[in-house]
Amino acid sequence: MKELIRMGERARTAASLLGSLGITEKNRGLSAAADALTANAKSILKANEMDMEAGRKKGMHQGLLDRLMLTEARIEAMAEGLRQIVSLDDPVGEVLSMKKRPNGLAIGEKRVPIGVIGIIYESRPNVTADAFGLCFKAGNAVILKGGSDALNSNKAIASCLREALAGCGLPEDSIQLLESTDREAAKALMRMNGYVDVLIPRGGAGLIRTVVENSTVPVIETGTGNCHIFVDESADIDMAVSIIFNAKTQRIGVCNACESLVIHKGIADRLMPALAKKLSEKQVEIRGDETVCRLLPGAVRASEEDWGTEYLDYILSAKTVGSVGEAIAHINRYNTKHSEAIITKDYANAQRFLDEVDAAAVYVNASTRFTDGFEFGFGAEIGISTQKLHARGPMGLKALTTTKYIIYGNGQVRP
Amino acid sequence: MKELIRMGERARTAASLLGSLGITEKNRGLSAAADALTANAKSILKANEMDMEAGRKKGMHQGLLDRLMLTEARIEAMAEGLRQIVSLDDPVGEVLSMKKRPNGLAIGEKRVPIGVIGIIYESRPNVTADAFGLCFKAGNAVILKGGSDALNSNKAIASCLREALAGCGLPEDSIQLLESTDREAAKALMRMNGYVDVLIPRGGAGLIRTVVENSTVPVIETGTGNCHIFVDESADIDMAVSIIFNAKTQRIGVCNACESLVIHKGIADRLMPALAKKLSEKQVEIRGDETVCRLLPGAVRASEEDWGTEYLDYILSAKTVGSVGEAIAHINRYNTKHSEAIITKDYANAQRFLDEVDAAAVYVNASTRFTDGFEFGFGAEIGISTQKLHARGPMGLKALTTTKYIIYGNGQVRP
Repeated sequence: MKELIRMGERARTAASLLGSLGITEKNRGLSAAADALTANAKSILKANEMDMEAGRKKGMHQGLLDRLMLTEARIEAMAEGLRQIVSLDDPVGEVLSMKKRPNGLAIGEKRVPIGVIGIIYESRPNVTADAFGLCFKAGNAVILKGGSDALNSNKAIASCLREALAGCGLPEDSIQLLESTDREAAKALMRMNGYVDVLIPRGGAGLIRTVVENSTVPVIETGTGNCHIFVDESADIDMAVSIIFNAKTQRIGVCNACESLVIHKGIADRLMPALAKKLSEKQVEIRGDETVCRLLPGAVRASEEDWGTEYLDYILSAKTVGSVGEAIAHINRYNTKHSEAIITKDYANAQRFLDEVDAAAVYVNASTRFTDGFEFGFGAEIGISTQKLHARGPMGLKALTTTKYIIYGNGQVRP
Repeated sequence: MKELIRMGERARTAASLLGSLGITEKNRGLSAAADALTANAKSILKANEMDMEAGRKKGMHQGLLDRLMLTEARIEAMAEGLRQIVSLDDPVGEVLSMKKRPNGLAIGEKRVPIGVIGIIYESRPNVTADAFGLCFKAGNAVILKGGSDALNSNKAIASCLREALAGCGLPEDSIQLLESTDREAAKALMRMNGYVDVLIPRGGAGLIRTVVENSTVPVIETGTGNCHIFVDESADIDMAVSIIFNAKTQRIGVCNACESLVIHKGIADRLMPALAKKLSEKQVEIRGDETVCRLLPGAVRASEEDWGTEYLDYILSAKTVGSVGEAIAHINRYNTKHSEAIITKDYANAQRFLDEVDAAAVYVNASTRFTDGFEFGFGAEIGISTQKLHARGPMGLKALTTTKYIIYGNGQVRP
């Protein structure tokens, strides 16, 4: 705990220095950090091999081992990620508005760094460099708490980044890694009000729930996606099949993948055979309601639980409805407020769906897979917020800033 | 708890109806609510008299009794507050940006209601109507938990507002009052994730700490203000005296009142006598460091604790420093991130103070008392945020909204 407080103090000191850096200095730090990753690839790989060895010994799942593993190409990709952040505009310093009040006060709203950001994540060492890069460009110090299985890798990456910053005369405490692996240290980090301004958990539903449950520091919940596609009665069948196939199968384990279909009864008999044929290319299992199962003898009958499940697998639930209103009600009941789409030719239904579906991103005639900071044109992404405060949807650099009011007076007092 | 879940469900239903209301319907509801307050003044006063009687019996402090007390004029002021909200623009529905991506997707960001807002407050019955009015205009349902000493007053006000809404065919569950007075009910409200989107505590430091400590629902911390005024070496003495006198004494118990002075050593001997003379008009006690006490034989020696204290009283701490940098460091160490001012004629020092002081509102040559939604031109205020997420500084209607991305496609899939 004492060590954590000291980390918090060092982070605050670094943050107050970072807040006044210009883009040239910040970019110099990021470039140096990128070069350092490349130059130190061998020692990072060596540290990673220790983690991999320990992971294999304890029988870690293949998918987790793959996320943990670094290669020269992956380290180069981390470096390239930092270089891409160099190319982005500085989000800090912009005055968003400035208005004169009747009493002569000029009141402006200026974008400034948040200060100290805590990131809690799983055993994916690439997040160490990514999260640092985004927080640093936005002028924030970061305290990282990665999964314990990646500790050696994270230590090697963090110390390489810190040395690079120090080498440029920039505060190395812009990035600090919490090395303690016990859960109490993570919980203490979640209660560092006054030192940490916001916590962003990055990982699965369990991690996010733990942070939300235990944190007194404000949290930005990045989240799970039980994303729906609603095929309206008037939909173009080919377009519907193409979008659903893309949203379900283009990448299976991601939060913007489609997990649930809602199908208008008036189109179900024309849609389902074509759709089932296409989805069978990837052996997607369909879990449907009575109507769907009647139309597709191979479909499994869905349970109530299916409507609310994020499978992250080659499984898709399918529910039929009698109207767009019924579709919206079903989606708002079971969705996780992430990304939802309607496929339709009908103007009024498209507008109503956009208006009434409660989610971070609502699509007409496009795949839910586009909910992503790069696809939205932000140039980077720290995560996708599924809560409504501060930032909603893909979070780029701006989500890592706040504002402050700056007021120019000439002696005004309040009457 | 079951009752609370049912309240949450009713609030969600009301919120989804409110989200699609236009300004005309919302304003009709607000006007009806204002008229109902006026029409039911007698029964509200009767209920309030029960609370006052109980308060007097239990020996409630005079200040608290005054905040609890309603009069016909105060009820009329509540009604007038609702009518003022009618005159404000609808914050909902504005599309803040809409851009075309290279793949043809048009991605827009639209302002929408947050959904369900929980307000936890002390025994000030006027907040019941105020908070409802602001949340309603922004399209949100509200669940209110007021102080138990005001329960009868709050019940009378809430039922009057609910009837007025029902009379217009608007959802009466737009406002619900949590009537249970035990602390467990309040704590349960703080854990209503999925039903309540944000909690806003309004009240003293103790209440806010309890909500921050116990809530898993996102909180907007409205806060205490240990506001500083720094008198730079080049300050105009008359302006400094006038601003400090205003910021300290114009209203004593508010969060934007000045609590702490920081004075450049080069001006202290010229400033202190004039300032002390002016402050003596209101018998303000000065607690100073060694230099201040030498200049003002009547001053009390400040302890370390004084630098961090929000007095809300006729007391002012005063610390001398050798430079603007030292002043900024002192302020950033002891402030509560609310409002801070510099009095100076020096251009560079003014800019540096604006840049480096970490607070929601930073002033040059003006009283900190201006940090207020009305003074900032928002037309209303739900509170002043001292945290950095979502909203910082005075919160008007826009702070009660979020955004969602709306995306127009024509069959796009992710490659």
